[in-house]
Amino acid sequence: MPVAEMFPNLRGRVKLAFSTPEEAGLKHCDVVFFATPNGVAMQQQTRALLDAGVKVIDLAADFRIKDIAVWEQWYKMEHTCPDLVAEAVYGLPEINRAAIKGARLIANPGCYPTAVQLGFLPLLEAGAVDTGFLVADAKSGVSGAGRKPETHILFAEAADNFKAYAVGGHRHWPEIRQGLERFAGKPVDFTFVPHLTPLIRGIHATLYAKVSADIDLQALFEKRYAGEPFVDVMPAGSHPETRSVRGANVCRIAVHRPQGGDTVVVLSVIDNLVKGAAGQAVQNMNILFDLPEDTALTDVGMLP
Amino acid sequence: MPVAEMFPNLRGRVKLAFSTPEEAGLKHCDVVFFATPNGVAMQQQTRALLDAGVKVIDLAADFRIKDIAVWEQWYKMEHTCPDLVAEAVYGLPEINRAAIKGARLIANPGCYPTAVQLGFLPLLEAGAVDTGFLVADAKSGVSGAGRKPETHILFAEAADNFKAYAVGGHRHWPEIRQGLERFAGKPVDFTFVPHLTPLIRGIHATLYAKVSADIDLQALFEKRYAGEPFVDVMPAGSHPETRSVRGANVCRIAVHRPQGGDTVVVLSVIDNLVKGAAGQAVQNMNILFDLPEDTALTDVGMLP
Amino acid sequence: MPVAEMFPNLRGRVKLAFSTPEEAGLKHCDVVFFATPNGVAMQQQTRALLDAGVKVIDLAADFRIKDIAVWEQWYKMEHTCPDLVAEAVYGLPEINRAAIKGARLIANPGCYPTAVQLGFLPLLEAGAVDTGFLVADAKSGVSGAGRKPETHILFAEAADNFKAYAVGGHRHWPEIRQGLERFAGKPVDFTFVPHLTPLIRGIHATLYAKVSADIDLQALFEKRYAGEPFVDVMPAGSHPETRSVRGANVCRIAVHRPQGGDTVVVLSVIDNLVKGAAGQAVQNMNILFDLPEDTALTDVGMLP
Amino acid sequence: MPVAEMFPNLRGRVKLAFSTPEEAGLKHCDVVFFATPNGVAMQQQTRALLDAGVKVIDLAADFRIKDIAVWEQWYKMEHTCPDLVAEAVYGLPEINRAAIKGARLIANPGCYPTAVQLGFLPLLEAGAVDTGFLVADAKSGVSGAGRKPETHILFAEAADNFKAYAVGGHRHWPEIRQGLERFAGKPVDFTFVPHLTPLIRGIHATLYAKVSADIDLQALFEKRYAGEPFVDVMPAGSHPETRSVRGANVCRIAVHRPQGGDTVVVLSVIDNLVKGAAGQAVQNMNILFDLPEDTALTDVGMLP
Repeated sequence: MPVAEMFPNLRGRVKLAFSTPEEAGLKHCDVVFFATPNGVAMQQQTRALLDAGVKVIDLAADFRIKDIAVWEQWYKMEHTCPDLVAEAVYGLPEINRAAIKGARLIANPGCYPTAVQLGFLPLLEAGAVDTGFLVADAKSGVSGAGRKPETHILFAEAADNFKAYAVGGHRHWPEIRQGLERFAGKPVDFTFVPHLTPLIRGIHATLYAKVSADIDLQALFEKRYAGEPFVDVMPAGSHPETRSVRGANVCRIAVHRPQGGDTVVVLSVIDNLVKGAAGQAVQNMNILFDLPEDTALTDVGMLP
Repeated sequence: MPVAEMFPNLRGRVKLAFSTPEEAGLKHCDVVFFATPNGVAMQQQTRALLDAGVKVIDLAADFRIKDIAVWEQWYKMEHTCPDLVAEAVYGLPEINRAAIKGARLIANPGCYPTAVQLGFLPLLEAGAVDTGFLVADAKSGVSGAGRKPETHILFAEAADNFKAYAVGGHRHWPEIRQGLERFAGKPVDFTFVPHLTPLIRGIHATLYAKVSADIDLQALFEKRYAGEPFVDVMPAGSHPETRSVRGANVCRIAVHRPQGGDTVVVLSVIDNLVKGAAGQAVQNMNILFDLPEDTALTDVGMLP
Repeated sequence: MPVAEMFPNLRGRVKLAFSTPEEAGLKHCDVVFFATPNGVAMQQQTRALLDAGVKVIDLAADFRIKDIAVWEQWYKMEHTCPDLVAEAVYGLPEINRAAIKGARLIANPGCYPTAVQLGFLPLLEAGAVDTGFLVADAKSGVSGAGRKPETHILFAEAADNFKAYAVGGHRHWPEIRQGLERFAGKPVDFTFVPHLTPLIRGIHATLYAKVSADIDLQALFEKRYAGEPFVDVMPAGSHPETRSVRGANVCRIAVHRPQGGDTVVVLSVIDNLVKGAAGQAVQNMNILFDLPEDTALTDVGMLP
Repeated sequence: MPVAEMFPNLRGRVKLAFSTPEEAGLKHCDVVFFATPNGVAMQQQTRALLDAGVKVIDLAADFRIKDIAVWEQWYKMEHTCPDLVAEAVYGLPEINRAAIKGARLIANPGCYPTAVQLGFLPLLEAGAVDTGFLVADAKSGVSGAGRKPETHILFAEAADNFKAYAVGGHRHWPEIRQGLERFAGKPVDFTFVPHLTPLIRGIHATLYAKVSADIDLQALFEKRYAGEPFVDVMPAGSHPETRSVRGANVCRIAVHRPQGGDTVVVLSVIDNLVKGAAGQAVQNMNILFDLPEDTALTDVGMLP
């Protein structure tokens, strides 16, 4: 099936057709992206591809969580290659750029973990907040649930509707907590509540913590992300909109301290399909192969 | 102008026409609802109507905040009748039913305050949470901003978009805090972040607090709202959807304790135009006049 | 499964639970509604129910098309009870009220056929238009496609998108043509193009024909529908909105003659789930059992 | 005001700030685009700019309609420079490429006229249809109405709603008719009904005519648009989606002949803000200045 038949926006631009992994000659590629359900990359070929000198970037969860027991608990299957988990580099360039450069296997973070971790990162690295009560209230567009037809993501069910889900426990919680604990250098108490919102694309994470140090938060964020090509710290008082990153590989962040109190509120937006998935995967590829980091990633957010 | 011309859904049902307050003979009414901009009710006629024996229900903010200085700071005008503020009863039936019955003047709470206060009420009354870090992350449909044409609520600006606003300070913050402190019997540290979400109708408040007492939270909520006709405590593990209350005078609430930790998450949904505005005003009228409390309020939420 | 679990808007209002047809004791009912896929009603029980004295209202297509060969061509199955097709009354009360009263079996029309037939009816009955070029350009909300999960009706596929479908031939085309030919008393040349539009509920049919008689079209429509409780002919120059009938059992119609030329444009809107399905079925039941025709059908359209 | 402040998607990409026409030094430009309300370009500077050797591309309606009396009737103002109307070239490259190359002043067609004219063009040029009954049923996203705040285009009014408007007469009707008559070489009877649909971006025109010649319509369209970089004739049986052109300077067209009858149905989609406005203006500039015609116009439609 031609790709442009399934995605008619590509008519006239793309001559590729879908092929099976067998036909595709993956071992002759420089890099293979797995955009497959959880568990596929670890079971199929990742080891063989690495042995053949192919770089692998997995967009699913197979290599993201270092603690195998935790992974198995949340993904309800046995892990088949724990050694590769140990080797894999978590593909968040803003914390791991150097390691990505030399990696063979990248675990590409998804939508919620990217938005939430980038929002908390400066605060936790700087020891600026109490790690005993970190809250991430996250809202996702419906494309975050994928294209598999399920009743609750039908238009007539999801339009003009808003709800939380998986409050009792979401698979991204242990992944994000792992990151936050790495940034903080110690255990954190972290609450994560995802919501489904009638957007096609977009993640908006609203983060809450108690400030525990006397620090200029705006300056802290600006300095931390000064050299980052895909993180935009907005001016004090800003409210980033998801549409400002629609189609763009950007995370826009604003930091607030309401009424000058000791609560910090961080607003972090990404396009879940770009900086939260495919765009970040390309960014990782660019780093892996020493290409300019923004190669193929210069699209501006579409507004309106 | 006939009402059914502006609202064609009412064609064939309603023969009323809009009239000016002067023509309307308000002093001969049993009750007058003010659905006017902030400041109008206090300046126009409220005192005269009360003197004439007319009950007044104000859907705006004029009589909601007891501390006049706080009100004037947030609403940027001088209050013209502080004595009426002192007299007014805050029209949240779930806490003030008895007082409403005997009142002359009702300050009808709006959308965010209703959803947030009903969600925190059982926890604070019971002393079940730490009052030092209460967070309300609230999401509103666009009708919450009213019908006055403004650029940011145009379809092409608000559709497929999500953003926080007024993180630095929103007028409903002091109103909600006043309520929470009343429930708790002491000062609280309260953070409120409103968001604009592409819904026509609906408020979803997600509330966070640290549990400080060993209490069965599900039982606490069920008991507190046992007799309430318009609050529905859902079974443990539920996620209320805004569409389940679309058009209905209901607040649906679920309470969670993720992973059995010490953070409580309350999910509270209402229709901002019904339980968050006009429906609640009718409920208050019913109580005022000793009518069955659900008179004209039996519509079921429209789904889908 | 309790009905209120699948439809949480009904919590506290409905104690019914879903049951299998076997458990349900259908033969002891006064009336049975089939809201089943095409082909189910004819294969299951309709004859047995009728024999037991039960009235049957089928919301699917099994008994709508009188020409069995045409039906079999479009529905791709053999019809198992042509005699019941012959007996069935097409449940459009505006043309068949008397026949419905005495019927045992009602074929309830769906969304497109209701909106299009009611819009053309006065013109064709009066011989006011050329039957050689009738066009219905119809737009449907996504709930018209049902709740079965399919990719093209996912939120992320159907939102912010508009497309025609089945231009080569849609199953409602022969059904509507059958009606139009009945109204006209002769064959018609009829083109029908359905479109999918990002609404939850609503059908908007825009109808085009050449005027062939010197008639006051506004008066024609008003007179034809003068006594009809659920058809609202709007004033000349009006543009009915789908939201004005959202949740209501009403068809709103406006008739135009642009620039005074000889083309007539009829605008006809319904809620596909009410006057285009369940509401009309209840209306038929009311007629069948000599109940007031608006029993349980008095809800006003929800706006906004 | 920096452009990137009003359009935060451009943060980090664009350093431009808005300036007044006076400050802007328009006379030193190679080309000036007027994206101003109707009547502004003709009253302000167009003549002076042309005299100074500046090319002018007007995105409003000032120079589109050759018959000044017709223009004045529909735009309700007196035209101040009829001679420039006579000189202006209608900027639809698919019919006027050669004339555009040598022009000083381009009247850039808007959204409905582009979609409708490109859909009818091959049929009328070939004399393939009866010109006595041409129908365009057009649906527009809400951004087609501009950014000026008006009640009917608020999110809460336009979402989950569908309506026709201006059925009695829309300003684009005489403009489109002028084009169709040029293509046909004779008067046509043309009906145009625009609709507002809850899309941010997109026009879908559904066109109806009676076939009057024995022609392979698919081949006709493919041949007519064979060399056109921005018109995509889809395979027989296709249904173009508006989202396939979201953000792209493309018109996608499919041609149908339902049930092999003598009615032709053309489906034509564009992004009203791109091929229906700014993109087409850039295409015209590229032609004017002998640049590659797709300069700055290679963005692919964003899907989903």
